[in-house]
Amino acid sequence: MYISQIFTKTTKENPAGEVSVNAQLLERGGFVYKNSAGVYTFLPLGWKVAQKITAIIREEMNAIGGQEMFMPALVEKKYLDATGRWDVGVGFKILDKLPVTDSELQVTNFVLGWTHEEVITEMASKFISSYKDLPFSAYQIQTKFRNEPRAKSGLLRGREFMMKDLYSFHTSEEDMLEYYGKVKDAYAKIFERCGLKAYYTVAAGGDFTAENTHEFQVLSEVGEDTIFLCEKCEYAENSEISKLKTGEKCPTRLPDGQECGGDIKEEKSIEVGNIFPLGTKYSDAFNFKFTDEKGGKHSVVMGSYGIGIGRVMGATVEVSHDDKGIIWPDNITPFNVHLVDLTKNGEGKDVYEKLIAKNIEVLYDDRTDKTAGEKFADADLLGCPVRLVVSEKTLKENSVEVKRRAGDEIKLVLIEELERALVR
Amino acid sequence: MYISQIFTKTTKENPAGEVSVNAQLLERGGFVYKNSAGVYTFLPLGWKVAQKITAIIREEMNAIGGQEMFMPALVEKKYLDATGRWDVGVGFKILDKLPVTDSELQVTNFVLGWTHEEVITEMASKFISSYKDLPFSAYQIQTKFRNEPRAKSGLLRGREFMMKDLYSFHTSEEDMLEYYGKVKDAYAKIFERCGLKAYYTVAAGGDFTAENTHEFQVLSEVGEDTIFLCEKCEYAENSEISKLKTGEKCPTRLPDGQECGGDIKEEKSIEVGNIFPLGTKYSDAFNFKFTDEKGGKHSVVMGSYGIGIGRVMGATVEVSHDDKGIIWPDNITPFNVHLVDLTKNGEGKDVYEKLIAKNIEVLYDDRTDKTAGEKFADADLLGCPVRLVVSEKTLKENSVEVKRRAGDEIKLVLIEELERALVR
Repeated sequence: MYISQIFTKTTKENPAGEVSVNAQLLERGGFVYKNSAGVYTFLPLGWKVAQKITAIIREEMNAIGGQEMFMPALVEKKYLDATGRWDVGVGFKILDKLPVTDSELQVTNFVLGWTHEEVITEMASKFISSYKDLPFSAYQIQTKFRNEPRAKSGLLRGREFMMKDLYSFHTSEEDMLEYYGKVKDAYAKIFERCGLKAYYTVAAGGDFTAENTHEFQVLSEVGEDTIFLCEKCEYAENSEISKLKTGEKCPTRLPDGQECGGDIKEEKSIEVGNIFPLGTKYSDAFNFKFTDEKGGKHSVVMGSYGIGIGRVMGATVEVSHDDKGIIWPDNITPFNVHLVDLTKNGEGKDVYEKLIAKNIEVLYDDRTDKTAGEKFADADLLGCPVRLVVSEKTLKENSVEVKRRAGDEIKLVLIEELERALVR
Repeated sequence: MYISQIFTKTTKENPAGEVSVNAQLLERGGFVYKNSAGVYTFLPLGWKVAQKITAIIREEMNAIGGQEMFMPALVEKKYLDATGRWDVGVGFKILDKLPVTDSELQVTNFVLGWTHEEVITEMASKFISSYKDLPFSAYQIQTKFRNEPRAKSGLLRGREFMMKDLYSFHTSEEDMLEYYGKVKDAYAKIFERCGLKAYYTVAAGGDFTAENTHEFQVLSEVGEDTIFLCEKCEYAENSEISKLKTGEKCPTRLPDGQECGGDIKEEKSIEVGNIFPLGTKYSDAFNFKFTDEKGGKHSVVMGSYGIGIGRVMGATVEVSHDDKGIIWPDNITPFNVHLVDLTKNGEGKDVYEKLIAKNIEVLYDDRTDKTAGEKFADADLLGCPVRLVVSEKTLKENSVEVKRRAGDEIKLVLIEELERALVR
């Protein structure tokens, strides 16, 4: 894509009132636009990143049998009444008529969906009645809404945000826990593919379940969570439930029967995903039972599993940047290559077209009204993994300058060897 | 995909209270689930159709330079105040706190986005200032909300629905109209690829603009619109503005200078897309101006262009079904092939795997607890373009029975020649 054709522009100045690095860099780069507190537009560059994250999530959810669907944001009272969650504070209620005067205000029977356990459980109960229909799992990638009094930290805590939510349904706790393990592994793959180091962390039950749940936590000073983490075996507990303390030795029993003994450290962290054993809380609320092989009836056992797409994007920027800008991991970068053209007559175009023909995604800085310094600054800010520079000087040697965003080394590579150099 | 693994099931009975064919067949097939009046879930089969429609739309929008992005559903008052649209009735307002008593109800500054002209105009004004930045166009595929007092007709008129909305920005009316023509052509391609015959129709201005606009209308008795259509040249006008009458001769001036003279007929129709010249209404509201080559300042000229994804799906079912079920067009079918296995031991699996290996999408009816009649009925209801039947009898001849959903002819085709037979 030609930079001159993208309608957004970069800015040097940090946006007013934004203290978190992800908000600063993503807004400066034109990845997102803050429409209201906690409410963002994904601009074309940011949408490319979001789509790469969702593509990775889709692949891994499909690989464990998740069936993709799409539930509504308007969630009717009948759903949340069944579990007593109609009046939970994070739910945005909706008005039915124009507020001519305050006394005429009338609430509809709808809340903006902040989670979808009730909706999917009620639907599943209409289709599933036998043990033969179980287990199954279904997911969606959809916008959630939460009335956050303290929307902050850019994409890390919004009032409107995109989420992948997977729900699984089973004949037994044991079967659910087996699938729970598969989701855990799928999540580990997702975060690894996104370039994030996420720690599997034991956490409290929260609104959804009384049992312990698990979170995936990325270490970051701006995180709202605190975890106690063993440096050796990577066992982690959320401070909300942890009895561990900094400086203690890790009591985790290793496969060989010995205690791990690693050093426990306290860390701030960002929750990028969570998995919940739900038991029969929701199935009981909707009288959702299955018939076993002998005709007996039992409540369906459930699990639910979430990943915040914007939060993955925001957390990535928090942990992968320098003072010049973002450093995108290879798999979620908006473009593989940022091609800076310093020639007077746009001679970089040939290189651009050669790379495009090889299915390499290229952001081509074709602008003629910017200095070399401005172009380099934008390449650093936008953070594509590889920067190429074409100039009259490099073209004399049929070459292109290659620099990785994360490194300092600059190499001159022959154009005909460029593809190989990029793949390596 | 194995039918036994899809969590939804088909039903023989029409859903209570649904009179429109699209709602009946889509619910009976397990494509959608009605959560509330005008609020639907896209179940796995329906989501596949929706994703095929959006993929076609994306390709055609990208082909005319549209930059994909994603705007929020929470639209703040500041946007709609600028154009006086804050109190438009279709907007769902949002409450800020729990409705403990009516007198405590407090409206937030947010409405659920029912269109996004204001949001994109304000954002564009932050990035665009020179004629050099124009023209450009950007679009999103996103959920819209409208407080419809008469949500009805299944997917044809919902309170929550998925929409593609494209917006274009220009230095002049002339440039806008040139792009308007490109969008018209792109829309014609989209509907053709989706298998819909849509008539380009002159329509009234409506809420968005005072000028004439254009709609794409699909003829159907359940449509809410009425158009006057020339059978010969296909010129069409919405009855809201038309002075034509049934039985009149078409006054359209043809390229050769003659009047068309075709017969005008009155038809009911479904609006599946619309395109609006917006002039400078929105740019003026946000003081969005560009500087020309001589330093003069002018208002940016805009257009907006919408397609309802669910409505395309619903209209398709309305015009492409018989008394047994849906007949999906090739490009938006959930699966290319519906493979019915009538063998006792699941011997159709080999055929399934051969087709899958050739990247043919197959819905494989592997169920052992259903009769042949039930399986055929489901194949007709679900409506994949081709039905294959494997039985002990066909396998004796190394063959598969092939029948097109839209036809009656049943052919026996050798398994080794099956791929060729399907592509034809």
